[in-house]
Amino acid sequence: MPDSLKVGIAGLGTVGGGVASLLTRHHNLIATRAGRTVEIAAVSARDRSRDRGVDLSRATWCDDALDLVDRPDVDLVVEAIGGADGIAKDLCVKALKAGKPVVTANKALMAEHGGMLAALADETATSLAYEAAVAGGIPIIKGLREGLSANVIDGVYGILNGTCNYILSEMRSTGRDFDDVLEEAQAKGYAEADPSFDIDGVDAAHKLAILAALAFNGTVAFDDVHVEGIRRIAARDIAYAEELGYRVKLLGIARRRLEGVALRVHPCLVPQEAPIASVEGVFNAVIAQGDFVDQVMMVGPGAGAGPTASAVVADIVDIARGFKLPVLGAPVNGLAPLTAVPIAQRGGAYYLRLMVSDQPGVIATIAALMRDNDISVESLLQRGRSDTDAVPVVIVTHETNEAAMQRVVDALEREEAVLEPPHLIRIESLVH
Amino acid sequence: MPDSLKVGIAGLGTVGGGVASLLTRHHNLIATRAGRTVEIAAVSARDRSRDRGVDLSRATWCDDALDLVDRPDVDLVVEAIGGADGIAKDLCVKALKAGKPVVTANKALMAEHGGMLAALADETATSLAYEAAVAGGIPIIKGLREGLSANVIDGVYGILNGTCNYILSEMRSTGRDFDDVLEEAQAKGYAEADPSFDIDGVDAAHKLAILAALAFNGTVAFDDVHVEGIRRIAARDIAYAEELGYRVKLLGIARRRLEGVALRVHPCLVPQEAPIASVEGVFNAVIAQGDFVDQVMMVGPGAGAGPTASAVVADIVDIARGFKLPVLGAPVNGLAPLTAVPIAQRGGAYYLRLMVSDQPGVIATIAALMRDNDISVESLLQRGRSDTDAVPVVIVTHETNEAAMQRVVDALEREEAVLEPPHLIRIESLVH
Repeated sequence: MPDSLKVGIAGLGTVGGGVASLLTRHHNLIATRAGRTVEIAAVSARDRSRDRGVDLSRATWCDDALDLVDRPDVDLVVEAIGGADGIAKDLCVKALKAGKPVVTANKALMAEHGGMLAALADETATSLAYEAAVAGGIPIIKGLREGLSANVIDGVYGILNGTCNYILSEMRSTGRDFDDVLEEAQAKGYAEADPSFDIDGVDAAHKLAILAALAFNGTVAFDDVHVEGIRRIAARDIAYAEELGYRVKLLGIARRRLEGVALRVHPCLVPQEAPIASVEGVFNAVIAQGDFVDQVMMVGPGAGAGPTASAVVADIVDIARGFKLPVLGAPVNGLAPLTAVPIAQRGGAYYLRLMVSDQPGVIATIAALMRDNDISVESLLQRGRSDTDAVPVVIVTHETNEAAMQRVVDALEREEAVLEPPHLIRIESLVH
Repeated sequence: MPDSLKVGIAGLGTVGGGVASLLTRHHNLIATRAGRTVEIAAVSARDRSRDRGVDLSRATWCDDALDLVDRPDVDLVVEAIGGADGIAKDLCVKALKAGKPVVTANKALMAEHGGMLAALADETATSLAYEAAVAGGIPIIKGLREGLSANVIDGVYGILNGTCNYILSEMRSTGRDFDDVLEEAQAKGYAEADPSFDIDGVDAAHKLAILAALAFNGTVAFDDVHVEGIRRIAARDIAYAEELGYRVKLLGIARRRLEGVALRVHPCLVPQEAPIASVEGVFNAVIAQGDFVDQVMMVGPGAGAGPTASAVVADIVDIARGFKLPVLGAPVNGLAPLTAVPIAQRGGAYYLRLMVSDQPGVIATIAALMRDNDISVESLLQRGRSDTDAVPVVIVTHETNEAAMQRVVDALEREEAVLEPPHLIRIESLVH
């Protein structure tokens, strides 16, 4: 058996602690599968005294994570610190420059600096692996970059944030409203104390940017991703969606277009019979559309210590087995920056919920606006009267385009009878 | 760029033709991703004159597939001949002995001779890749062997035969009976003229044997797989299942047990809300349960020229990239034969449909048999009277065991009032 692979772990929180625990618990299994043992040679974390439920007494403790790179007994660095910049980035840069492979679970880092890091990895012919950065335990990076390597990828999309999916699933099954369910999710540990990163779609956008770079073999400017979160989804939207044959999901969508690549994260109505509609709770799901393979979907846990460790250690095993892959699926010098297609060019159907005052002529005004913008209405729901004077009107359009819908929304916002900013949710048929 | 990888393709039917077409169409894409070009150096097929829609004029034609191995301009052999023995097996053996990597889509060969071929590949340190042998375009071999390499796999199961899934889906959506739908599937090319290989479960069992060997890092004796097909599933079973909250699927199931490994292919009732229940038509789905990752599901097209070529060429790209993997996930000399747990030891719930004569006392007889075998009944459906005297009685049991159910079935078969052999379908809760 060849020499053991000696690993240095920077950060011993949920991710790093999980990795240390897995490497320890499955030491023999991994040796069998990798063809060599994987040892934890050194670790670095803020709090040395904390009990992490794993015996690290044989590992050297480094106060400065950057020192891991200099140690001759560290062959590979696991970056489990987090954050798009700062020490996490410095560590990866230093390791790659030194020709030491890096395994990271850091989606923010990869989304914002993936191109730079990939170029560095290319220069020194060093591995940079990041399976755990997207969709937790689902081997989607491997699936796309290796499993579907023979395909031109036309699109990749999915449920990329488990917190949002949990909240939307709970709202649907219990009929409760967003704030209420969010609070519960925080109590259960499914949402952070400051949940904005998740619920405003930023986390999903990070993952989408990584997937798009890989799928289309190009570099993505993170700011090109159109991002909307789920704060404005109300219990009644979910109920109306259900009635109309849809389910509400926060999707990240990357699609190849003639003019470039559409990159967007926002709530969607998806058909109830679409396989992705039945992915509930904290699970993630990614669908890739390739020209030869057609559609492949992968579903699994999107976060958590176990699934994340599973993905990080799979990367370590790959490197122990001697694999060397182009970070973004092809050499960086062959990668062009991807041109983002603005959301204004989206084509598709829309769900629009208005809260209007219960007075004659409102529907006529709305209908005229639709007509004037060439938008044809598939269905319109208006039910009963309201105690509070605000009556919901729900409109589902036929296929139209974002620019036209935005004109309608802008005009409606100026109408006195429209009492709240309109609630617009895009309908994704998920037919390619 | 390193030298090009030169490929010899044996067999130019659906699989081989698809591979040739993909390699030709995506020549540049593959070169970018693999880091070297992949060229078709030589081919072998029975009919030289047939137009396969791809220009093979620059490839050498070999009348004998075995000659491909001897050619110095062939680095890698694609076996697309098919069949568990004969020329397909001879070709793989010869290539591996010569140290030339083999890529195959041949599930029968891998299921029946995988252990022998893996040992040969180990001996000569040669790659043997077979992604296309299981679940068509879904990268499940890669997912299990690499993506989930950090996990003890506790179980792997799924929809492994697209023909059966198509038939069952059509039966459900149209209410038609088996023979009728089979005939249509044959007309559409979704089922073979002789469909027994698919509908009797043998094809699914081949794939299950391969998945089990990989998941549990052991060798599987193909005869150890318990196999039942879908011929006895009637339209009314599907309708009853629907009414009871289930859907009928042919599943291949491999589960780690204390005493060994359960290996079985048979029709199942699965809960309608289980994600696998919504996988319809010719799609396949595989779920793996790992101790760290929890559950990962992969869904995609289970057959067809495009998806199969996608999987075969992904294997070629891996080899072009320089990957070398243990065929069954670990070195063969470390693999023990897996001990199969007999189906008689299955625990679970059951659906039982009886066609009984419409006379007093029949239900009492059935109920007494259940009681005497310690089987508790969850629900019993008996409706209306019949013109033909045969009345269906449907029973759903609580958790019990296969041996007890078989005693009941045997006893029922001897009852005069029971007019057909009982229809027994196992209920899989899909909760690990």
